Amino acid sequence: MKVAIFGIGLIGGSAAKDLRTANFCTEIIGVGRSEASNNKALELGLVDRIVSKEIAVQEADVIILTVPVNSLIQELIFVLDNIQSHQTVTDMGSTKGIIIDAIKEHPNRKRYVASHPMAGTENSGPSAAISNLFKNKICIICDKENSDADAIANVEALYNTLGMRIKYMDAHQHDMHAAYISHISHISSFVLAATVLEKEKDEAAILEMAGGGFESTVRLAKSSPEMWAPIFQQNKNYLLEVMDTYIEKMYHFRNLINKNKDEELLHFMQEANEIRKILK
Amino acid sequence: MKVAIFGIGLIGGSAAKDLRTANFCTEIIGVGRSEASNNKALELGLVDRIVSKEIAVQEADVIILTVPVNSLIQELIFVLDNIQSHQTVTDMGSTKGIIIDAIKEHPNRKRYVASHPMAGTENSGPSAAISNLFKNKICIICDKENSDADAIANVEALYNTLGMRIKYMDAHQHDMHAAYISHISHISSFVLAATVLEKEKDEAAILEMAGGGFESTVRLAKSSPEMWAPIFQQNKNYLLEVMDTYIEKMYHFRNLINKNKDEELLHFMQEANEIRKILK
Repeated sequence: MKVAIFGIGLIGGSAAKDLRTANFCTEIIGVGRSEASNNKALELGLVDRIVSKEIAVQEADVIILTVPVNSLIQELIFVLDNIQSHQTVTDMGSTKGIIIDAIKEHPNRKRYVASHPMAGTENSGPSAAISNLFKNKICIICDKENSDADAIANVEALYNTLGMRIKYMDAHQHDMHAAYISHISHISSFVLAATVLEKEKDEAAILEMAGGGFESTVRLAKSSPEMWAPIFQQNKNYLLEVMDTYIEKMYHFRNLINKNKDEELLHFMQEANEIRKILK
Repeated sequence: MKVAIFGIGLIGGSAAKDLRTANFCTEIIGVGRSEASNNKALELGLVDRIVSKEIAVQEADVIILTVPVNSLIQELIFVLDNIQSHQTVTDMGSTKGIIIDAIKEHPNRKRYVASHPMAGTENSGPSAAISNLFKNKICIICDKENSDADAIANVEALYNTLGMRIKYMDAHQHDMHAAYISHISHISSFVLAATVLEKEKDEAAILEMAGGGFESTVRLAKSSPEMWAPIFQQNKNYLLEVMDTYIEKMYHFRNLINKNKDEELLHFMQEANEIRKILK
């Protein structure tokens, strides 16, 4: 089997590493976006060859799109326009509804499997690719009923090889859960970084005091803006809702401190503390 | 040398472990607040004996206060009222200005060294005590000039034994940096937990999607509310300032998404991303 990966960065590169180790395929061909990252991907042995997207769609049995979500629709349409009935295409993007809606009337819709492996680090690019990134994490496959059974089987085999646990969900449900849990986490971290950079003018103090919880809480703010800004834009509706709740809670917290409401402050924090029971 | 620890939880218990391993003292005596945690501290071998605070101040050469900051002033005054000129008392609290202000006229002020070892985990109680918690982290000693030189030397020896790097700071400077870096991190994490618990009614989804950045960003919300609420109250002035900046930034972020200001959103995130350069 031959696999093509569009976008050989953190996600695509990490998948390539594990697929190769597991002998999932005989060849991995890559479609990159810049000469520098293409050369890096070759040098690191993530892909065997760099090819044009035309060649990739001609040759590959399974095509994986790991480009940022703002380029995804365009690439997916290109692939579906050229795909044959024995080939499968999937994507690893963090939004699903807007992508699925964009191709829902495409005659080759059923060769596409919408998926989102919930894995990542704050790093990006081919050099950020690591082994076992996906292992034991959750992968969400959306709107399974709109894909051909053999395409679903191919994509399930792919994620099983990566060691993932597969869940099935409606695309809009996926986007809601992703906004309410993962995307708001990234946003709170970006806002924390922006706040600390504005208020704290002593960079040495930031580094020295980072051990007091800042470093881990701000980690996601190191994530690629080029990757994440389009995710926030595409998931706007659910995201605005959860951001409004976040702002409201932060105001409430502020007022409890400001007005010396000691009992209520403690109570608010004890309720938030319940997250312990869920994340055992 | 004999060391007394008031409050044998995560911080006091972890210090006890390392001091014992390093043979810093011949005996560690503990002053706990509940029978259950006293028994636990004895059972875990964190302390050799549990004693009353009167006995502790009579016997110990170095007294370490690791109680929550809302009990700290009262305990510190008790110790200073009874301390002899060969004894030293220090605290490990996360606020400094309000504590130092409360005892600044005390005749035994100079036997007190105000310090804040910047180390911790999200767990609490004697069972949370771990070895090497403090190793290679920063410890801040405040208003050094108001303590006797031999008291400072004792406390420096203590933190050197724990493997910490010592910095010196004015108490109010400490509180500002702590608010702007560490305390706002805790608050953003508590608010994230409160938000996700309110919006996301599917607990299984929280657990399944936690790997997408939520788990690490929300970690600090697992911290003890009884320990942290008093810190926020005591550091109120600096904290309200930085919370206001945080709220303003979050609103701005929200509006950039809402109004489809793609370029500005990317730019805002790229600026926040600069935190990478500081936290190399």
